[in-house]
Parts: sequence; C-alpha cells; structure tokens
Amino acid sequence: MIKEPKITLVGAGPGDVDLMSIKGAKALAKADVVLFDALVNEELLSFAPENALKIFVGKRAGKHSMKQEEINQLLVNCALSYGHVVRLKGGDSFVFGRGYEEIDFAHSYNIATEVIPGISSAIAVPALSGIPITHRGLSESFWVITGTTTSGKISDDIYVAAKTKATVVVLMGVNKIAEIVKIYKEHSLGRLPVAIIQNGSMPNENFAVGVINTIEEQILEKEISAPAVIVIGEVVSLHPKFQPIIESYEFVDAE
Amino acid sequence: MIKEPKITLVGAGPGDVDLMSIKGAKALAKADVVLFDALVNEELLSFAPENALKIFVGKRAGKHSMKQEEINQLLVNCALSYGHVVRLKGGDSFVFGRGYEEIDFAHSYNIATEVIPGISSAIAVPALSGIPITHRGLSESFWVITGTTTSGKISDDIYVAAKTKATVVVLMGVNKIAEIVKIYKEHSLGRLPVAIIQNGSMPNENFAVGVINTIEEQILEKEISAPAVIVIGEVVSLHPKFQPIIESYEFVDAE
Repeated sequence: MIKEPKITLVGAGPGDVDLMSIKGAKALAKADVVLFDALVNEELLSFAPENALKIFVGKRAGKHSMKQEEINQLLVNCALSYGHVVRLKGGDSFVFGRGYEEIDFAHSYNIATEVIPGISSAIAVPALSGIPITHRGLSESFWVITGTTTSGKISDDIYVAAKTKATVVVLMGVNKIAEIVKIYKEHSLGRLPVAIIQNGSMPNENFAVGVINTIEEQILEKEISAPAVIVIGEVVSLHPKFQPIIESYEFVDAE
Repeated sequence: MIKEPKITLVGAGPGDVDLMSIKGAKALAKADVVLFDALVNEELLSFAPENALKIFVGKRAGKHSMKQEEINQLLVNCALSYGHVVRLKGGDSFVFGRGYEEIDFAHSYNIATEVIPGISSAIAVPALSGIPITHRGLSESFWVITGTTTSGKISDDIYVAAKTKATVVVLMGVNKIAEIVKIYKEHSLGRLPVAIIQNGSMPNENFAVGVINTIEEQILEKEISAPAVIVIGEVVSLHPKFQPIIESYEFVDAE
C-alpha cells in the first residue's frame, strides 16, 4: 500500500537539539523520509524512525551542493514514493530558507504540505550570547537582512539600514563584512557596536564583539568564519564584554 | 533547605502548545514558580509540576496590568523564596518582550539567569497562515517594528520602512492601522499587499488580506482586534486568498 504523500517543512532552530519545537519532533517521529541541510544538527535525525530514509542535501566542503530545483524534485519524488517527507532546515524555513519554493513546487503536484516554524538564528543566536535584539530606549525595531542576495551582491537594504536606529541582523554576511563596515563608516558610524557569532547555541560557539572600526580585526583574532550571525546596533552595548570597549573609548576621549 | 535561586526566561511561541521548544518544556518541568503573561497559552502550565506556584502577571480586560518594575521585583522575590522561577512569555522574550530588563534586574541581585528563545510570532504567524516573510525576487530582508513605543506613538521606523522593499511586520499595531495606512498612502503605495492575523497558530485564527487602500475595511469586516500581527509587502501576494484581489485590479486596470 502506497502511503498518502505529504511534505512537512520543519525549522530545526539554531543548532541546540532541544531548541527544536515539540511539534517538529512529533513530525520527525512520523517521517518516512527526512531531507536535511548542512546547517541542521544531525542529532535531530534520532527523532525520526530508525528505518526512515535520511538524505543529506546540503553543501559540504569541496563538493557542490544540490541545486534548489533538484531538491524540489527530490522532495516530490520521495513523497510520491514513500509517503511523509520531513524537510528539515536550520533556523526557520522562511528566513532566507527558500521554503516557499519547495511548498509551491509540492502544490503543483497536489501534494499536501504543512509548515512547522523554527526558532530563527537571527533572534535566538544574539539572545543566547547575551544580546537582546530589542530593548526599550535603544531600539524599536530589528531588521534582518541577507548578506548574500540572488545576484551574489550585498543587499541594497543594508545601505538604508545603516541610516536607521533599527538593530540590524545580517545572516550569511561574514564574507561581506568589509563591505558592511565600509557602508557604516560612510555614515560616520565607526563606533557603533557590532557582534558576530559563529555556531550560536552550540558548545563550540565563537563570539566577537567590537565596534564598526574594530570588528574586522576581532573576526581575524577570533578566527570566526561563515556561517555566522552579525548584529549591529546599540543593543550590542548591553553585552558584558562590551563594557571594557566603552571604557577604552572614554579613556581615549578624555585624553 | 532553601534552593539555589534561578530565573529562566522561556519564550512560549505564538500560541500552539506544541510550538514550545523541547528546552522550554524541560525548564518548566523543573520550575518551582511560573510567572506567565496574558499572551501565553495556559495549557503550557501543565508542563510544570502540579505543586509549582503559577502566577499570572498579564493584563486582563478591565484590570490594570502589573508594572514592569513590580514584575521584576516579584521574579526576584520568588527566586529568593522558592528557587527556580520560569518566566513564561508569548513569542520570544527579546522581541519587544522586555526580557533584558528582567535579566538585568535579576543580575543586580546576583541571581543566575538563563534564556531559552521562543518561536517569534513575527515570523511564525505569517508562515502558518501561508505567507513566507522572505522569498527570492520579492524581498531580501524583513523589518519587525513595534506599533506601540514607550511614548505611545507609532515608531518613526515605520516612516523609513515604507520607503524600502523589506517585508515589514508590525507587532502591537492594530490600533495604529489608520496611521500606518496613511504613511504608506503618502508614498503612493495604496496597492501594496497587507495581511493581518489575530490568534495566529490557534484554532480561532482570524485572518484578513487586502492592500493598503482596503485593509481597514477588511479589518472591520473580519472583526479583527488586538493583539494581531500585521505583514506588509509583496510576499503577502503569495497567499492564495490574494489571487482574487490581483484579478480584480487587473479588471479595473483593463477598463
């Protein structure tokens, strides 16, 4: 008997297995197939039945990743052949996760879909490292921007964001940090606080904090590499490691 | 024996009990006291031990809510008297949740704190109703803004946001919808798609979709009231209920 095809998009959260939702864990428990990305903690696969197919579709060093069109087709083929496919993505599927493209493709085959949101790294990774993305008196909004657009260029939105008081979170932007710094410097914001966090929520978290003028040095010193979350704005000054930076500037200004 | 005082901030997610994280559920299971808000689904309290104190600190119709300073003090007092306090908030504690103020106050008493992020309604509520907050070709960013600032006024950020291509999400903004509409109309964006969702993720979800020019009517017709999530931007056009709106405009334009 062929099972009813279904595709469930599950957001796996920032990395810590326990930051998965109860609903996501329940969906995995009923999976016939799991398709998962490189950013997903593989321990999560243990929630799925032992005999479920587990297929890696992410990018790994030295190897080309599967194209989005290939993933879409694989999802549909698996649903038609095996039944319930859980598509497991890091963070949340709709935060630069191309989740809607997968849903849309599934609907073109009349396959039922369900969306289970995840905890987005954009909010949770700063929070877990001690930075609230909003705080009364410091920010009335936060703006989450992709560092890498379809064209490969930095998003134009960062030019506008630099002029606002919004907390700015850049995802997939580590390789664009020089450009980001340049944009903020053009607005004379060299002393605006910045933090950058790799492997947020995990035991191997790597964290750097500074200001626009110093963050590139800090990234080199801490050897932070992609993927990482960049947070820019006054809320970063609430992090305990920012206090010595404030004091050093007060010292410089007093001279 | 007095237990070690500790305060854990837990984000409860948008409403559906199963959208709580596994980590949040585990923290509740070890709570001596739970302090919860009006936006929290009270079924979540069943994760806490039966003999744990459960204290409501939210706003209810006709009654004044507890002031933030009173909540801060109550959290500390409960931790010092009973041990482990779980502070349970709707969505995520740092998305306009004043979580940092509570953490900061606890630290002034040397009380240990932990933060467990939640699924934010800003992202999940649109997603569950069928709107991805980012989608290739339509938006490279999303900007989450509070409709109600400390001063009670609309945030200035909305004036800037209306000029960008970011998906704009306004929380706590239903009572400011006339002002929001006015701002977008000033930028000649009367046909920009908008959706508004009350009780997102719950069986009693109430949803309206339209364009800037029509959304106020839609809110009245669907009897949507606060709290609700407002989503503004081209991604809203991906919702199936938006298709007839596009067709009606094509009809008008063709005349």
